[in-house]
Amino acid sequence: MIQKSQNITRVYHRISAEERHTKAGHQGGVVWFTGLSGSGKSTLAFTLEKHLFDLGYHVYVLDGDNVRHGLSGNLGFSEEDRRENIRRVSEVAGLFAEAGVIAIAAFISPYREERRLARDIAGERFIEVHLSTPLEVCEARDPKGLYKKARAGKIPDFTGVDAPYELPEYADLVLDTGARSVEDCTAELTGLIREKFRL
Amino acid sequence: MIQKSQNITRVYHRISAEERHTKAGHQGGVVWFTGLSGSGKSTLAFTLEKHLFDLGYHVYVLDGDNVRHGLSGNLGFSEEDRRENIRRVSEVAGLFAEAGVIAIAAFISPYREERRLARDIAGERFIEVHLSTPLEVCEARDPKGLYKKARAGKIPDFTGVDAPYELPEYADLVLDTGARSVEDCTAELTGLIREKFRL
Repeated sequence: MIQKSQNITRVYHRISAEERHTKAGHQGGVVWFTGLSGSGKSTLAFTLEKHLFDLGYHVYVLDGDNVRHGLSGNLGFSEEDRRENIRRVSEVAGLFAEAGVIAIAAFISPYREERRLARDIAGERFIEVHLSTPLEVCEARDPKGLYKKARAGKIPDFTGVDAPYELPEYADLVLDTGARSVEDCTAELTGLIREKFRL
Repeated sequence: MIQKSQNITRVYHRISAEERHTKAGHQGGVVWFTGLSGSGKSTLAFTLEKHLFDLGYHVYVLDGDNVRHGLSGNLGFSEEDRRENIRRVSEVAGLFAEAGVIAIAAFISPYREERRLARDIAGERFIEVHLSTPLEVCEARDPKGLYKKARAGKIPDFTGVDAPYELPEYADLVLDTGARSVEDCTAELTGLIREKFRL
Protein backbone atom coordinates (compact mmCIF):
# COMPACT_ATOMS: atom_id res chain seq x y z
CA MET A 1 0.00 0.00 0.00
CA ILE A 2 1.23 3.45 -0.85
CA GLN A 3 0.79 6.00 1.93
CA LYS A 4 -0.66 8.93 0.01
CA SER A 5 -2.35 10.88 2.74
CA GLN A 6 -0.60 14.06 3.79
CA ASN A 7 -1.39 17.11 5.90
CA ILE A 8 -2.89 14.94 8.60
CA THR A 9 -2.79 15.37 12.35
CA ARG A 10 -3.72 12.52 14.64
CA VAL A 11 -6.58 13.36 16.99
CA TYR A 12 -7.14 11.13 19.96
CA HIS A 13 -10.22 9.73 21.59
CA ARG A 14 -10.97 10.96 25.09
CA ILE A 15 -11.96 7.48 26.19
CA SER A 16 -9.13 5.10 26.96
CA ALA A 17 -9.14 1.40 26.06
CA GLU A 18 -9.17 0.71 29.81
CA GLU A 19 -12.34 2.74 30.32
CA ARG A 20 -14.05 0.89 27.49
CA HIS A 21 -12.80 -2.42 28.91
CA THR A 22 -14.02 -1.60 32.43
CA LYS A 23 -17.45 -0.60 31.22
CA ALA A 24 -17.99 -3.55 28.89
CA GLY A 25 -16.29 -6.14 31.07
CA HIS A 26 -14.07 -7.22 28.21
CA GLN A 27 -11.52 -5.80 25.81
CA GLY A 28 -12.12 -5.10 22.18
CA GLY A 29 -10.29 -7.45 19.84
CA VAL A 30 -10.19 -9.34 16.59
CA VAL A 31 -10.96 -13.02 16.08
CA TRP A 32 -9.73 -13.81 12.60
CA PHE A 33 -11.01 -16.94 10.83
CA THR A 34 -8.96 -18.14 7.86
CA GLY A 35 -9.65 -21.20 5.74
CA LEU A 36 -10.85 -22.49 2.40
CA SER A 37 -14.25 -21.69 0.94
CA GLY A 38 -16.66 -24.15 2.55
CA SER A 39 -14.45 -24.70 5.61
CA GLY A 40 -17.20 -23.39 7.89
CA LYS A 41 -16.00 -19.83 8.54
CA SER A 42 -19.34 -18.04 8.19
CA THR A 43 -21.37 -20.70 9.99
CA LEU A 44 -18.96 -20.72 12.90
CA ALA A 45 -18.61 -16.93 12.91
CA PHE A 46 -22.35 -16.31 13.17
CA THR A 47 -22.83 -19.07 15.74
CA LEU A 48 -19.99 -17.67 17.84
CA GLU A 49 -21.36 -14.12 17.48
CA LYS A 50 -24.77 -15.18 18.80
CA HIS A 51 -23.21 -17.19 21.65
CA LEU A 52 -20.92 -14.34 22.74
CA PHE A 53 -23.76 -11.81 22.45
CA ASP A 54 -25.89 -13.94 24.78
CA LEU A 55 -22.98 -14.04 27.23
CA GLY A 56 -22.85 -10.23 27.26
CA TYR A 57 -20.06 -9.44 24.80
CA HIS A 58 -20.13 -6.60 22.31
CA VAL A 59 -19.50 -8.56 19.16
CA TYR A 60 -19.90 -8.20 15.40
CA VAL A 61 -19.12 -10.38 12.39
CA LEU A 62 -17.26 -8.96 9.42
CA ASP A 63 -17.85 -11.46 6.70
CA GLY A 64 -16.39 -11.83 3.22
CA ASP A 65 -19.84 -12.08 1.76
CA ASN A 66 -21.42 -9.00 3.30
CA VAL A 67 -18.37 -6.69 3.23
CA ARG A 68 -18.10 -7.37 -0.49
CA HIS A 69 -21.46 -5.67 -1.10
CA GLY A 70 -20.41 -2.45 0.58
CA LEU A 71 -16.92 -1.44 1.62
CA SER A 72 -15.24 -3.62 -1.00
CA GLY A 73 -18.00 -3.46 -3.61
CA ASN A 74 -15.60 -1.75 -6.00
CA LEU A 75 -13.06 -4.57 -5.80
CA GLY A 76 -12.91 -7.72 -7.90
CA PHE A 77 -11.15 -11.01 -7.27
CA SER A 78 -7.72 -10.43 -8.78
CA GLU A 79 -4.84 -11.06 -6.39
CA GLU A 80 -4.38 -7.30 -5.98
CA ASP A 81 -8.05 -6.66 -5.28
CA ARG A 82 -8.25 -9.56 -2.84
CA ARG A 83 -5.30 -8.18 -0.92
CA GLU A 84 -6.88 -4.73 -0.83
CA ASN A 85 -10.13 -6.28 0.38
CA ILE A 86 -8.34 -7.97 3.26
CA ARG A 87 -6.39 -4.80 4.02
CA ARG A 88 -9.61 -2.78 4.30
CA VAL A 89 -11.25 -5.42 6.46
CA SER A 90 -8.17 -5.53 8.70
CA GLU A 91 -8.37 -1.78 9.23
CA VAL A 92 -12.10 -1.96 9.96
CA ALA A 93 -11.62 -4.86 12.37
CA GLY A 94 -8.96 -2.75 14.08
CA LEU A 95 -11.40 0.15 14.42
CA PHE A 96 -14.01 -2.17 15.93
CA ALA A 97 -11.42 -3.47 18.40
CA GLU A 98 -10.53 0.10 19.31
CA ALA A 99 -14.22 0.81 19.85
CA GLY A 100 -14.29 -2.03 22.40
CA VAL A 101 -16.07 -4.53 20.15
CA ILE A 102 -14.89 -8.07 19.42
CA ALA A 103 -14.81 -8.21 15.63
CA ILE A 104 -15.08 -11.70 14.19
CA ALA A 105 -13.58 -11.60 10.72
CA ALA A 106 -14.36 -14.55 8.46
CA PHE A 107 -12.32 -14.46 5.27
CA ILE A 108 -10.45 -17.05 3.21
CA SER A 109 -7.42 -14.74 3.55
CA PRO A 110 -5.06 -17.21 1.86
CA TYR A 111 -1.81 -15.25 2.22
CA ARG A 112 0.42 -15.17 5.28
CA GLU A 113 1.41 -11.60 4.57
CA GLU A 114 -2.17 -10.30 4.69
CA ARG A 115 -2.91 -12.20 7.90
CA ARG A 116 0.24 -10.72 9.41
CA LEU A 117 -0.99 -7.27 8.42
CA ALA A 118 -4.35 -7.93 10.11
CA ARG A 119 -2.48 -8.99 13.25
CA ASP A 120 -0.16 -5.98 13.11
CA ILE A 121 -3.10 -3.59 12.92
CA ALA A 122 -4.93 -5.18 15.87
CA GLY A 123 -1.77 -5.60 17.93
CA GLU A 124 -2.01 -7.78 21.02
CA ARG A 125 -5.75 -8.12 20.70
CA PHE A 126 -5.74 -10.68 17.89
CA ILE A 127 -6.68 -14.35 17.75
CA GLU A 128 -5.98 -16.24 14.53
CA VAL A 129 -8.18 -19.29 13.99
CA HIS A 130 -7.36 -21.66 11.16
CA LEU A 131 -10.32 -23.67 9.92
CA SER A 132 -8.32 -26.60 8.63
CA THR A 133 -11.24 -28.52 7.13
CA PRO A 134 -9.68 -30.55 4.27
CA LEU A 135 -10.22 -29.46 0.68
CA GLU A 136 -12.12 -32.68 -0.12
CA VAL A 137 -14.62 -31.96 2.66
CA CYS A 138 -14.99 -28.31 1.62
CA GLU A 139 -15.44 -29.30 -2.00
CA ALA A 140 -17.99 -31.99 -1.15
CA ARG A 141 -19.99 -29.39 0.84
CA ASP A 142 -19.67 -26.72 -1.87
CA PRO A 143 -22.47 -24.68 -0.24
CA LYS A 144 -22.46 -21.99 -2.92
CA GLY A 145 -21.56 -24.20 -5.88
CA LEU A 146 -18.31 -22.30 -6.28
CA TYR A 147 -15.95 -25.29 -6.48
CA LYS A 148 -18.07 -26.70 -9.28
CA LYS A 149 -17.78 -23.41 -11.16
CA ALA A 150 -14.07 -23.15 -10.41
CA ARG A 151 -13.39 -26.72 -11.66
CA ALA A 152 -15.34 -25.85 -14.80
CA GLY A 153 -13.01 -22.89 -15.29
CA LYS A 154 -15.75 -20.34 -14.71
CA ILE A 155 -14.06 -18.74 -11.65
CA PRO A 156 -10.35 -18.02 -12.12
CA ASP A 157 -7.88 -17.87 -9.23
CA PHE A 158 -10.06 -19.89 -6.86
CA THR A 159 -8.26 -20.70 -3.61
CA GLY A 160 -7.50 -24.42 -3.31
CA VAL A 161 -8.23 -25.05 -6.99
CA ASP A 162 -5.94 -22.82 -9.02
CA ALA A 163 -4.78 -20.32 -6.42
CA PRO A 164 -2.67 -21.12 -3.35
CA TYR A 165 -3.70 -21.26 0.29
CA GLU A 166 -0.69 -20.59 2.50
CA LEU A 167 -1.06 -22.54 5.73
CA PRO A 168 -0.96 -20.44 8.91
CA GLU A 169 2.27 -20.67 10.86
CA TYR A 170 1.07 -18.98 14.01
CA ALA A 171 -2.59 -19.90 14.40
CA ASP A 172 -3.82 -19.59 17.98
CA LEU A 173 -6.34 -22.33 17.32
CA VAL A 174 -6.80 -24.92 14.56
CA LEU A 175 -10.28 -26.32 14.04
CA ASP A 176 -11.39 -28.95 11.53
CA THR A 177 -15.14 -28.53 11.13
CA GLY A 178 -15.18 -31.76 9.14
CA ALA A 179 -14.24 -33.66 12.31
CA ARG A 180 -15.82 -31.53 15.06
CA SER A 181 -19.28 -30.09 15.64
CA VAL A 182 -20.06 -26.38 15.47
CA GLU A 183 -21.08 -26.50 19.17
CA ASP A 184 -17.76 -28.05 20.16
CA CYS A 185 -15.77 -25.51 18.13
CA THR A 186 -17.83 -22.63 19.57
CA ALA A 187 -17.18 -23.81 23.12
CA GLU A 188 -13.42 -24.01 22.59
CA LEU A 189 -13.36 -20.59 20.94
CA THR A 190 -15.38 -19.07 23.76
CA GLY A 191 -12.87 -20.37 26.29
CA LEU A 192 -10.00 -18.82 24.37
CA ILE A 193 -11.82 -15.50 23.99
CA ARG A 194 -12.70 -15.39 27.67
CA GLU A 195 -9.07 -16.02 28.57
CA LYS A 196 -7.75 -13.40 26.18
CA PHE A 197 -10.39 -10.66 26.34
CA ARG A 198 -12.25 -11.51 29.59
CA LEU A 199 -15.90 -11.18 30.73
CA MET B 1 -18.66 3.13 -7.78
CA ILE B 2 -18.50 0.11 -10.04
CA GLN B 3 -19.95 -3.03 -8.47
CA LYS B 4 -17.27 -5.56 -9.32
CA SER B 5 -17.89 -8.24 -6.75
CA GLN B 6 -19.53 -11.38 -8.07
CA ASN B 7 -20.24 -14.88 -6.83
CA ILE B 8 -21.40 -13.55 -3.50
CA THR B 9 -24.18 -14.82 -1.28
CA ARG B 10 -25.51 -12.68 1.55
CA VAL B 11 -25.19 -14.31 4.96
CA TYR B 12 -27.21 -12.85 7.80
CA HIS B 13 -26.43 -12.20 11.41
CA ARG B 14 -28.35 -14.25 13.92
CA ILE B 15 -28.83 -11.25 16.18
CA SER B 16 -31.55 -8.81 15.15
CA ALA B 17 -31.26 -5.04 15.40
CA GLU B 18 -34.03 -5.23 18.02
CA GLU B 19 -32.04 -7.64 20.17
CA ARG B 20 -28.99 -5.35 20.02
CA HIS B 21 -31.22 -2.35 20.78
CA THR B 22 -32.87 -4.06 23.77
CA LYS B 23 -29.56 -5.10 25.25
CA ALA B 24 -27.79 -1.76 24.81
CA GLY B 25 -30.79 0.42 25.59
CA HIS B 26 -30.32 2.33 22.34
CA GLN B 27 -30.17 1.75 18.61
CA GLY B 28 -27.05 1.84 16.54
CA GLY B 29 -26.84 4.81 14.23
CA VAL B 30 -24.71 7.40 12.48
CA VAL B 31 -24.20 11.01 13.54
CA TRP B 32 -22.58 12.70 10.57
CA PHE B 33 -20.73 16.00 11.07
CA THR B 34 -20.07 18.04 7.94
CA GLY B 35 -18.39 21.42 7.75
CA LEU B 36 -15.26 23.29 6.77
CA SER B 37 -11.81 22.51 8.12
CA GLY B 38 -11.61 24.28 11.48
CA SER B 39 -15.39 24.35 11.96
CA GLY B 40 -15.04 22.30 15.15
CA LYS B 41 -15.97 18.81 13.89
CA SER B 42 -13.27 16.81 15.68
CA THR B 43 -13.47 18.78 18.92
CA LEU B 44 -17.22 18.39 19.06
CA ALA B 45 -17.09 14.74 17.95
CA PHE B 46 -14.67 13.71 20.69
CA THR B 47 -16.49 15.76 23.34
CA LEU B 48 -19.80 14.21 22.31
CA GLU B 49 -18.26 10.71 22.28
CA LYS B 50 -17.02 11.10 25.85
CA HIS B 51 -20.35 12.55 27.01
CA LEU B 52 -22.41 9.77 25.41
CA PHE B 53 -20.02 7.10 26.71
CA ASP B 54 -20.48 8.42 30.26
CA LEU B 55 -24.25 8.27 29.75
CA GLY B 56 -23.97 4.58 28.81
CA TYR B 57 -24.00 4.66 25.00
CA HIS B 58 -21.86 2.46 22.79
CA VAL B 59 -20.19 5.14 20.74
CA TYR B 60 -17.16 5.60 18.53
CA VAL B 61 -15.70 8.47 16.49
CA LEU B 62 -14.66 7.96 12.90
CA ASP B 63 -12.53 10.95 12.12
CA GLY B 64 -11.04 12.24 8.91
CA ASP B 65 -7.65 12.48 10.51
CA ASN B 66 -7.39 9.00 11.98
CA VAL B 67 -9.16 7.06 9.20
CA ARG B 68 -6.73 8.60 6.75
CA HIS B 69 -3.84 6.77 8.42
CA GLY B 70 -5.42 3.35 7.99
CA LEU B 71 -8.46 2.48 5.90
CA SER B 72 -7.90 5.35 3.48
CA GLY B 73 -4.12 5.51 3.77
CA ASN B 74 -3.84 4.64 0.08
CA LEU B 75 -5.99 7.60 -0.99
CA GLY B 76 -4.87 11.13 -1.73
CA PHE B 77 -6.88 14.35 -1.87
CA SER B 78 -8.03 14.48 -5.48
CA GLU B 79 -11.79 14.83 -5.87
CA GLU B 80 -12.02 11.15 -6.80
CA ASP B 81 -9.97 10.01 -3.81
CA ARG B 82 -11.91 12.24 -1.43
CA ARG B 83 -15.17 10.75 -2.67
CA GLU B 84 -13.81 7.23 -2.25
CA ASN B 85 -12.65 8.12 1.27
CA ILE B 86 -16.14 9.30 2.21
CA ARG B 87 -17.69 6.24 0.56
CA ARG B 88 -15.50 3.89 2.64
CA VAL B 89 -16.24 5.80 5.81
CA SER B 90 -19.97 5.71 5.04
CA GLU B 91 -19.83 1.94 4.68
CA VAL B 92 -17.85 1.56 7.90
CA ALA B 93 -20.23 3.87 9.77
CA GLY B 94 -23.08 1.70 8.45
CA LEU B 95 -21.36 -1.42 9.81
CA PHE B 96 -20.93 0.21 13.21
CA ALA B 97 -24.61 1.19 13.22
CA GLU B 98 -25.52 -2.39 12.33
CA ALA B 99 -23.35 -3.57 15.21
CA GLY B 100 -25.43 -1.40 17.58
CA VAL B 101 -22.84 1.34 17.98
CA ILE B 102 -23.46 5.06 17.45
CA ALA B 103 -20.78 6.06 14.97
CA ILE B 104 -19.89 9.74 15.03
CA ALA B 105 -18.37 10.59 11.66
CA ALA B 106 -16.50 13.88 11.44
CA PHE B 107 -15.54 14.73 7.88
CA ILE B 108 -15.58 17.88 5.78
CA SER B 109 -17.65 15.87 3.24
CA PRO B 110 -18.26 18.88 1.01
CA TYR B 111 -20.52 17.25 -1.58
CA ARG B 112 -24.26 16.68 -1.24
CA GLU B 113 -24.06 13.49 -3.22
CA GLU B 114 -21.59 11.85 -0.84
CA ARG B 115 -23.61 12.88 2.22
CA ARG B 116 -26.70 11.44 0.55
CA LEU B 117 -24.79 8.18 0.04
CA ALA B 118 -23.83 8.09 3.72
CA ARG B 119 -27.48 8.60 4.62
CA ASP B 120 -28.66 5.95 2.16
CA ILE B 121 -26.27 3.38 3.65
CA ALA B 122 -27.34 4.07 7.24
CA GLY B 123 -31.04 4.33 6.37
CA GLU B 124 -33.34 5.72 9.04
CA ARG B 125 -30.59 5.73 11.62
CA PHE B 126 -28.83 8.86 10.39
CA ILE B 127 -28.45 12.35 11.81
CA GLU B 128 -26.77 14.99 9.65
CA VAL B 129 -25.19 17.83 11.59
CA HIS B 130 -23.93 20.85 9.71
CA LEU B 131 -21.22 22.79 11.51
CA SER B 132 -21.93 26.13 9.89
CA THR B 133 -19.06 28.03 11.48
CA PRO B 134 -18.24 30.79 8.96
CA LEU B 135 -15.15 30.51 6.78
CA GLU B 136 -13.61 33.63 8.38
CA VAL B 137 -13.85 32.04 11.82
CA CYS B 138 -12.46 28.70 10.60
CA GLU B 139 -9.62 30.44 8.81
CA ALA B 140 -8.81 32.60 11.83
CA ARG B 141 -8.63 29.44 13.98
CA ASP B 142 -6.62 27.50 11.39
CA PRO B 143 -5.68 24.87 14.03
CA LYS B 144 -3.47 22.89 11.66
CA GLY B 145 -2.15 25.78 9.61
CA LEU B 146 -3.88 24.36 6.54
CA TYR B 147 -5.63 27.53 5.38
CA LYS B 148 -2.31 29.32 5.43
CA LYS B 149 -0.79 26.57 3.27
CA ALA B 150 -3.82 26.55 0.98
CA ARG B 151 -3.72 30.34 0.48
CA ALA B 152 -0.03 30.03 -0.33
CA GLY B 153 -0.92 27.50 -3.03
CA LYS B 154 0.74 24.61 -1.20
CA ILE B 155 -2.47 22.56 -0.83
CA PRO B 156 -4.57 22.35 -3.98
CA ASP B 157 -8.35 21.78 -3.96
CA PHE B 158 -8.80 22.97 -0.38
CA THR B 159 -12.46 23.21 0.59
CA GLY B 160 -13.57 26.80 1.07
CA VAL B 161 -10.46 28.17 -0.61
CA ASP B 162 -10.30 26.70 -4.11
CA ALA B 163 -12.74 23.80 -3.83
CA PRO B 164 -16.48 24.09 -3.21
CA TYR B 165 -18.45 23.29 -0.08
CA GLU B 166 -22.04 22.44 -1.00
CA LEU B 167 -24.35 23.59 1.81
CA PRO B 168 -26.49 20.80 3.31
CA GLU B 169 -30.14 20.93 2.27
CA TYR B 170 -31.47 18.45 4.80
CA ALA B 171 -29.34 18.88 7.92
CA ASP B 172 -31.09 17.65 11.07
CA LEU B 173 -29.17 20.21 13.08
CA VAL B 174 -27.10 23.30 12.22
CA LEU B 175 -24.50 24.44 14.75
CA ASP B 176 -22.19 27.42 14.53
CA THR B 177 -19.32 26.72 16.91
CA GLY B 178 -18.18 30.31 16.38
CA ALA B 179 -21.30 31.51 18.17
CA ARG B 180 -22.03 28.68 20.61
CA SER B 181 -19.96 26.79 23.18
CA VAL B 182 -18.93 23.16 22.81
CA GLU B 183 -20.94 22.34 25.96
CA ASP B 184 -24.07 23.95 24.55
CA CYS B 185 -23.68 22.13 21.19
CA THR B 186 -23.04 18.83 22.99
CA ALA B 187 -26.18 19.24 25.08
CA GLU B 188 -28.37 19.92 22.04
CA LEU B 189 -26.86 17.00 20.15
CA THR B 190 -27.39 14.68 23.10
CA GLY B 191 -31.07 15.62 23.22
CA LEU B 192 -31.46 14.83 19.53
CA ILE B 193 -29.61 11.52 19.85
CA ARG B 194 -31.69 10.51 22.85
CA GLU B 195 -34.87 11.29 20.95
CA LYS B 196 -33.76 9.41 17.84
CA PHE B 197 -31.80 6.45 19.23
CA ARG B 198 -33.01 6.36 22.88
CA LEU B 199 -31.32 5.41 26.23
